[in-house]
Amino acid sequence: MEKRVYNFSPGPAVLPLKILEQAQRDLVCYPGAGCSILEISHRSKTFDKIILGAEANIRTLYGIPDNYRVLFMQGGAILQFGMVAMNLLRDSGKAADYILTGTWSKKASEEAATQGKINVAFNAKATNYNRVPKQEELKLDPNAAYVYHCSNETIQGVQYPALPNVGDVPLIGDFSSDFLSRPVDVSKYGVMFACAQKNAGPAGVTMVIIRDDLVAKSPANLPSLVNYKVFAEGKSLLNTPPTFAIYIVKLVTDWLLNEIGGLAKIAKINEQKANLLYDAIEQSGGFYTAHAEPNCCSHMNVPFRLAKPELEEPFLKGAAALDLCELKGHRSVGGCRASIYNAMPVEGVQALRDFMLDFAKKNA
Amino acid sequence: MEKRVYNFSPGPAVLPLKILEQAQRDLVCYPGAGCSILEISHRSKTFDKIILGAEANIRTLYGIPDNYRVLFMQGGAILQFGMVAMNLLRDSGKAADYILTGTWSKKASEEAATQGKINVAFNAKATNYNRVPKQEELKLDPNAAYVYHCSNETIQGVQYPALPNVGDVPLIGDFSSDFLSRPVDVSKYGVMFACAQKNAGPAGVTMVIIRDDLVAKSPANLPSLVNYKVFAEGKSLLNTPPTFAIYIVKLVTDWLLNEIGGLAKIAKINEQKANLLYDAIEQSGGFYTAHAEPNCCSHMNVPFRLAKPELEEPFLKGAAALDLCELKGHRSVGGCRASIYNAMPVEGVQALRDFMLDFAKKNA
Repeated sequence: MEKRVYNFSPGPAVLPLKILEQAQRDLVCYPGAGCSILEISHRSKTFDKIILGAEANIRTLYGIPDNYRVLFMQGGAILQFGMVAMNLLRDSGKAADYILTGTWSKKASEEAATQGKINVAFNAKATNYNRVPKQEELKLDPNAAYVYHCSNETIQGVQYPALPNVGDVPLIGDFSSDFLSRPVDVSKYGVMFACAQKNAGPAGVTMVIIRDDLVAKSPANLPSLVNYKVFAEGKSLLNTPPTFAIYIVKLVTDWLLNEIGGLAKIAKINEQKANLLYDAIEQSGGFYTAHAEPNCCSHMNVPFRLAKPELEEPFLKGAAALDLCELKGHRSVGGCRASIYNAMPVEGVQALRDFMLDFAKKNA
Repeated sequence: MEKRVYNFSPGPAVLPLKILEQAQRDLVCYPGAGCSILEISHRSKTFDKIILGAEANIRTLYGIPDNYRVLFMQGGAILQFGMVAMNLLRDSGKAADYILTGTWSKKASEEAATQGKINVAFNAKATNYNRVPKQEELKLDPNAAYVYHCSNETIQGVQYPALPNVGDVPLIGDFSSDFLSRPVDVSKYGVMFACAQKNAGPAGVTMVIIRDDLVAKSPANLPSLVNYKVFAEGKSLLNTPPTFAIYIVKLVTDWLLNEIGGLAKIAKINEQKANLLYDAIEQSGGFYTAHAEPNCCSHMNVPFRLAKPELEEPFLKGAAALDLCELKGHRSVGGCRASIYNAMPVEGVQALRDFMLDFAKKNA
């Protein structure tokens, strides 16, 4: 086998090695099925067990109330940006409130604006999206169709430390980059959604957790695959779902439940991993600076800059030489970014922290 | 390794064994990438090579003219049923002509009817969808936004022997179950689309081949992921595509090009395989009957009935005992169905044919 590196990519991202090895074993012949997991019918009992098992795991991990559906869709978060607005805004006669804390909430507001009127309830643009709003900064419309926020901004590394209070208006949350990374009170949400390829599996499947009363609102003039109501009635099997991606989600959620021990446990581990990096940044005396404000710095994505920009390239090269890879930051923030999702081992983060300390010492 | 059966499933369907074995090798560590094919960034050079390679292969195999885009989408054919109508019908001020030859073209017309006016240009319902129209049976509107047909009806096993002539109106074709199975004159089409999980790969990616002038028609009031124009401008990388599914499509199209030798070659093989079964049916003296009329019986899906329905269950059990699996027909047609896509080896079809002859002899 070739050597595996520590992959700090924002997504598709690292998966637990033992899950890759199990998928590898099942790839030519899934036990008892007589064919590959790629060839298995989505109407078979074998696949039923996989998709129902994945749903049951997600329900257990989050403690999802019975009046919520868990859907397995395709199209990623950007399709959800559009679907939320097509289903819940376009024919509502209302406007929707958007809280803009980074690239992805901004993009979501742009997609929604193709479907109806949106209000910007908060905008962190002036400080290049480095923080979440204080409750008193939110300009909320009590008659809004919904309030939209992004739980963790992958690019800016800004993560809500606590939920915004939106009263009785349905709250919609994009959890793409912190799905299954910490406990969430699902009952506070109308819709939560997340693409898989950060914490939950490979690219190609998107989980949607949606409250029954919102499912019921989908207008009849929407085709089935973008209609929450029709899709939910079809129990995610209106047509062939992305069977392989769902199978990996099943394995990842098995691992979270049975080996890690649940979301409170993984949240603790994620906090410890993140603190290794934030502590190194803080102790560097300004050699490194984090992009996000301390109260909302993400436990999933850690964007940071070097005080001397000319050292950025040597930093990335030096890291890569130690198999610490995919650390270049997004152009809109600059600098570096370490994505340290659930499956990134502590050892990988320790190795990065050690390199950061060493590099700072040598180049101070 | 567990035993692999002959899998006659309509989809997800059989894949070439050597492709499964290669995917298995790459599943923990893709050569040179330092991580799994599931963990690789969609913005990496490695993935660029995969997606551009898959596109180049499909262009070569079909001889696609330069004024067509090849898109890799998600959501399967049913999302395309909706997207065709959202993009090309809803704001067109026109109606669209639908040719109904089976379950999937009918479903497509229902999805389109949520977006605008549709005309039924032909309907084979009276004969339980067992044939395609003769040219003179088509009631076409010369001002239609488009004419829609399904090249191969997976459930009814009805496949067009030749294209319908639709004049200057754009022709839209659902190729989900005969994609890459025979040559097609792409220049006759406005849009061709196909989910992967029959002939091209696993579930989770949908190929769309669309002419430039139709791409340009997408209205601005459609979110990005259901907007052909925005999606095409993003070159299928607006957001994270289903990387693993596209990787398998690349391997399958490599195999078609380099080992099979192209679409004319695979079409010949597919015809030979289909004839093994249709000949056995014809020579059975009425013991078996095919669902589709002879001039349009599919080379991909072969639905057939037994004259004595009480023999159906023993037939399926006897077949399964010989590892000939997934032969139960769809409830709307009844009887049995053998799906014999590109990757089904001749040996598998021969084994089924032999069993059919033997079973008929023993139960005549």
